[in-house]
Amino acid sequence: MATRAFAATSSDAPLTPYSFDRRDPGPDDVAIEIKFAGVCHSDLHIVKNDLGNTTYPIVPGHEIAGVVTAVGENVSRFKVGDRVGVGCMVDSCRTCAPCQAGEEQYCVPGMTQTYGSPDPKGAAVGQKITQGGYSSAIVVDQNYVVTIPDSLPLDAAAPLLCAGITTYSPLRHWKVGPGSKVAVIGLGGLGHMAVKQAAAMGAEVTVLSTSDRKKADAERMGAKHFLINSDKAAMAAAAESFDLIINTVSATHEIASHVQLLAKDGTMVMLGLTTEGLPVYAMGLLWRRRSVAGSLIGGIRETQEMLDFCAEHGIACDIETLAPHQINEAYERLEKSDVRYRFVLDMDRLGEAA
Amino acid sequence: MATRAFAATSSDAPLTPYSFDRRDPGPDDVAIEIKFAGVCHSDLHIVKNDLGNTTYPIVPGHEIAGVVTAVGENVSRFKVGDRVGVGCMVDSCRTCAPCQAGEEQYCVPGMTQTYGSPDPKGAAVGQKITQGGYSSAIVVDQNYVVTIPDSLPLDAAAPLLCAGITTYSPLRHWKVGPGSKVAVIGLGGLGHMAVKQAAAMGAEVTVLSTSDRKKADAERMGAKHFLINSDKAAMAAAAESFDLIINTVSATHEIASHVQLLAKDGTMVMLGLTTEGLPVYAMGLLWRRRSVAGSLIGGIRETQEMLDFCAEHGIACDIETLAPHQINEAYERLEKSDVRYRFVLDMDRLGEAA
Repeated sequence: MATRAFAATSSDAPLTPYSFDRRDPGPDDVAIEIKFAGVCHSDLHIVKNDLGNTTYPIVPGHEIAGVVTAVGENVSRFKVGDRVGVGCMVDSCRTCAPCQAGEEQYCVPGMTQTYGSPDPKGAAVGQKITQGGYSSAIVVDQNYVVTIPDSLPLDAAAPLLCAGITTYSPLRHWKVGPGSKVAVIGLGGLGHMAVKQAAAMGAEVTVLSTSDRKKADAERMGAKHFLINSDKAAMAAAAESFDLIINTVSATHEIASHVQLLAKDGTMVMLGLTTEGLPVYAMGLLWRRRSVAGSLIGGIRETQEMLDFCAEHGIACDIETLAPHQINEAYERLEKSDVRYRFVLDMDRLGEAA
Repeated sequence: MATRAFAATSSDAPLTPYSFDRRDPGPDDVAIEIKFAGVCHSDLHIVKNDLGNTTYPIVPGHEIAGVVTAVGENVSRFKVGDRVGVGCMVDSCRTCAPCQAGEEQYCVPGMTQTYGSPDPKGAAVGQKITQGGYSSAIVVDQNYVVTIPDSLPLDAAAPLLCAGITTYSPLRHWKVGPGSKVAVIGLGGLGHMAVKQAAAMGAEVTVLSTSDRKKADAERMGAKHFLINSDKAAMAAAAESFDLIINTVSATHEIASHVQLLAKDGTMVMLGLTTEGLPVYAMGLLWRRRSVAGSLIGGIRETQEMLDFCAEHGIACDIETLAPHQINEAYERLEKSDVRYRFVLDMDRLGEAA
């Protein structure tokens, strides 16, 4: 399947148009025409080779919303015309304990990520690694495809496939519900989803940010309180008050003062792909049996549950839609946190010139 | 009550003999003749003012085993001659949620620590702060006194009151039992208790240490495996294998490579009073939903449970008994980790000259 895309060809060149072949759908595959692809901060990490393991050319994109165009003979859950999504993974071993438990993101041999992972199935068409959603189409095993409920628009649903599940999974894992006090650090792509979801689960939500620029937005999304984390008096007043802190910051930052905001047995969950070590103080942890944890997206079953939850509660992402050729501009703005709150590429505009 | 003791008078002077008055037992108090006092690494932190809040003179010691010499009129659980223990706290607010839940160590206004806390009850005899167990006697509210089971020798039981509960509480909180894989970093006062207790709970225990000097000891205590943490090949082979890591190291140390040893959903619990920030990498946490947590001693009810558990399983501390005047030598050796595995002061030898 001839596929058009935008790809990075090195760590310092802008993304440019790129054409390649996808495999034809096999018996268990779903072929999807991609309508929208969200732009995640981790796309930027991979494009810039921040983790040191990028293979070029690379087509980023793991927040994919589209429509089924063909299905293999074993596919029963999807049919042509269905509105579907694909997130951060397109395969996993399926036999390890996490896979069996529906937590494929923690697959022991390692999940096959939507882009940049070795791609044995792509060998027939010369593909050595998986290529992502900044493209016209994708072919994915049915077990890694989810249904986008009718009430969710495809464009605003796309970022749910990474941002939405990345926040939903820890909110569920740490049992957020009515009465929970949840803080969200950083009101960006992930943060704004965390606020909406936690509020919908019944939690009392506080947003921590570096300025009050987004205060009105936070309140509109469901936050009860807004805290500027450089305000020492306000931070002191909020000490020991949160059961869960969702930390969405993906740049190196100071976390020790935020740990102090946790109540007894509270947990700060790191979701951002920070690459440097962040100092943690044993005293801050042990005095209230606090934890600093991490969480990675969510399983396929949980991703479907999250989409259904968002549909039920009228939750979608706040997005700004761009044409694919604007991706480099999007990255520049993303690095300055200049986005409210997720960029989504409209793949119908793939043909537009820069 | 005239009381003899050893006290620190400044952060850089050796401990010297010291006399002071304890309050007479009130209606709810138990007066205890101290037989043995364990020497905890945190005593050293306080003596040296490492946390910056020490008031001098200070009598350290919060691992107290002794015999009841008098009880107040409201005291029903103890009588003269009973073998009892006192740990790290002698009071708390009793009304906050943690106190009500039997987790007095997390008392919201703050527990009254056995030494160095403001002591309103001591005002009548001129005491402004609580003074600890390197002394001939102590007077403690009955609610903060525990019973030492007959089968436990008083000397080897003394360190259970801090070291023993500090390891027992997180082993219970993180639900260690048959099938659990537990690693213990550092085979010292806390570490050797963690090994014995975790093994008695049915866990498969691994000790991580900087050398193999203590390997035979670890195996005798119940460890199945022994890992030298500078052995990169062994560390790589142990990756993702532990449900719980009990980290007892109280000096600044590198923890990131140990986080990699945690299985999915595994937790490293920090028990040592390290004072500097220890870098933690978000990637190491989120890739397996790992946590780095802290835990502080345990509640009074749980301390009694721990003593009963230790008695039932024949667990006590491995100790080296010293005369009180040898305390400065004990501190020097403690700083070099030259102790197997806890120093205990024999308070019957208080009168001996240096």
